[in-house]
Amino acid sequence: MSCISLTTDFGVDDWFVGTMKGVIHGKSPTANIIDLTHGIPHGDIRAGAFALMAGYPHFPKQSVHVAVIDPGVGSDRPAIAVDTADYFFVGPDNGVLSWALRNEDVRAIHRLENAAYFLENFSATFHGRDFFAPVAAELMNGVSISHLGEKVTEIERLPWPSVHTSAEMLSGEIIYIDVFGNGITNIPVTEMRELRAPSVRIGSRGFAAVEACYGAVKTGHPVAVRGSSGYLELAVNGGNAAEYHHLEVGTNVSVR
Amino acid sequence: MSCISLTTDFGVDDWFVGTMKGVIHGKSPTANIIDLTHGIPHGDIRAGAFALMAGYPHFPKQSVHVAVIDPGVGSDRPAIAVDTADYFFVGPDNGVLSWALRNEDVRAIHRLENAAYFLENFSATFHGRDFFAPVAAELMNGVSISHLGEKVTEIERLPWPSVHTSAEMLSGEIIYIDVFGNGITNIPVTEMRELRAPSVRIGSRGFAAVEACYGAVKTGHPVAVRGSSGYLELAVNGGNAAEYHHLEVGTNVSVR
Amino acid sequence: MSCISLTTDFGVDDWFVGTMKGVIHGKSPTANIIDLTHGIPHGDIRAGAFALMAGYPHFPKQSVHVAVIDPGVGSDRPAIAVDTADYFFVGPDNGVLSWALRNEDVRAIHRLENAAYFLENFSATFHGRDFFAPVAAELMNGVSISHLGEKVTEIERLPWPSVHTSAEMLSGEIIYIDVFGNGITNIPVTEMRELRAPSVRIGSRGFAAVEACYGAVKTGHPVAVRGSSGYLELAVNGGNAAEYHHLEVGTNVSVR
Repeated sequence: MSCISLTTDFGVDDWFVGTMKGVIHGKSPTANIIDLTHGIPHGDIRAGAFALMAGYPHFPKQSVHVAVIDPGVGSDRPAIAVDTADYFFVGPDNGVLSWALRNEDVRAIHRLENAAYFLENFSATFHGRDFFAPVAAELMNGVSISHLGEKVTEIERLPWPSVHTSAEMLSGEIIYIDVFGNGITNIPVTEMRELRAPSVRIGSRGFAAVEACYGAVKTGHPVAVRGSSGYLELAVNGGNAAEYHHLEVGTNVSVR
Repeated sequence: MSCISLTTDFGVDDWFVGTMKGVIHGKSPTANIIDLTHGIPHGDIRAGAFALMAGYPHFPKQSVHVAVIDPGVGSDRPAIAVDTADYFFVGPDNGVLSWALRNEDVRAIHRLENAAYFLENFSATFHGRDFFAPVAAELMNGVSISHLGEKVTEIERLPWPSVHTSAEMLSGEIIYIDVFGNGITNIPVTEMRELRAPSVRIGSRGFAAVEACYGAVKTGHPVAVRGSSGYLELAVNGGNAAEYHHLEVGTNVSVR
Repeated sequence: MSCISLTTDFGVDDWFVGTMKGVIHGKSPTANIIDLTHGIPHGDIRAGAFALMAGYPHFPKQSVHVAVIDPGVGSDRPAIAVDTADYFFVGPDNGVLSWALRNEDVRAIHRLENAAYFLENFSATFHGRDFFAPVAAELMNGVSISHLGEKVTEIERLPWPSVHTSAEMLSGEIIYIDVFGNGITNIPVTEMRELRAPSVRIGSRGFAAVEACYGAVKTGHPVAVRGSSGYLELAVNGGNAAEYHHLEVGTNVSVR
């Protein structure tokens, strides 16, 4: 009774995600299929990689995580399945899996090449339905990853933006903006432990104090918190930090 | 095989809801997890309370209803679980559960204080994942509510707007506007039975006749119906009553 | 362990879909309920019919497909259930089922008239919850379709726009625009096989070459592909074909 999680940029307004689930249930009727999200901006591989990285560790061991942010679908980018100590990951080899895999003990990576595990008459434009869904169901059913195709040793990796550390400062950037307008940075909260009374500088002019929760400041005021994904997060109590601070992915954030 | 329903303001564009489901499945693998809605406007406790009240009675007995509209997450507002004759309810004690509980036979209310039932390393900003999801799974698994924390006798209650009744008139207000633009009032259809040929006055200038269904009037014309949640509802056949009548939550509506 | 698929125009921001699922689980606790989509534009029966047609064949045999795009809810339009060789279909008899049924071997059509299979105290405005959800659960449970109501021989059918074929040209139209802005036509890819090096004319001025996948052209450039639903599809690599070509449902498209 493990799970198959789905992360895509398909939205939920067409039949694409539902069709993937129909395919999975046809091959693995008892799989618990869980939407991690389908709201990744179209083709935004970094946002998909971050969402997967933030969400996957909370799933039961042996879950299969499928991520399809795949602007190159049908071209010659490979498709892969990855076996780690705790999970399987399935998706295009374009970096979307790579941030999650930074934290995993990778055992094997195989290309998806064996058409016996794809839908018959597969298309060149919907590999989510035709390749990734049936392969995820087969892995859930216990098919060996080695049957899927050639073993490879490397995957495409998105660069993880580095955090610069000095005696009294950590300097990083915004890496994801959520639906509340909270700006999540690449600065790990574990590295902030040594800072006393940390304060945050945002871009060229913004400031916020680090507090325990959003409600520690007055409504409409900016705040920084130790975010639930393990990274420093900028917020506005009852408001939208992205608008307040004019945040974009890449905006510089530093903690002193 | 009962259900866990989820009502939040998290939207579905990030990994938040999917992560809650991963946590639940890790602790209660056979739970049926059903999204009641994640589209409550951010921080709108009243809208969440109404959606929960309108939806929960249609779930099988023994279901666990989780509602997380929680602008005070991490502050000192308590978190609670409530045992009623037919269901469990889990959420912050900020009123979001209170309209559903008006209709329930409450047996016990306990605070969520026992960290043994939370995720390890729980955050101060995502109690949906770290407190409410695991507690809902444990209740589904049969853990006694009394183990969760101190028993209390009162919860925070949102005032339910009163309906004024006179010999020939019921006067109330708009309490929820749905995605179709239908305006749901606080006027119970059961109280309208004594009115013959009721007509509805909306705000200072709007009118509508009460009909059996939306299609009883021409396309584009206003109508009032006995709504499916048990309250008088304003609609426009094939259109948007909120735009037509300039409805807001609180707009006065009266039936004669 | 078959599936019940749901296709509606209810959106996911209110409690409507969740409530339907609660009703289904109350009557059929082990049903796998899968959202095909709830993002059909309000009252757009053709879009709902196309989404159902594109998605349903990928579900396991014996699944029950429920489609509720139902602007005439509560009026005298009949509600029906349809038994085919592989599936059941449930919905209003307004055409929303008709495009899927073009491809099915229909065995029996029955009206939904037997109130024993509806919710008690059913409303005139939410047949999704009160009629279609409980009937779908009962069909999943093995109730004979003949118990639901009168057998009929005909259903309301939406006209399927015809494709004009000449020696060197196929002429059709846009029938659905998806969330990526891709324009799906009514031109079957099976009929394009005889065309050598096909090129596509769109409206009065647009052109695109037919390629194997979106990425076969440069980013921002138009392309036509053999779409995953079996129809010619217009796209822009990394962009939005509906905006690029000013597509609407009904825009003429021809292949030479």
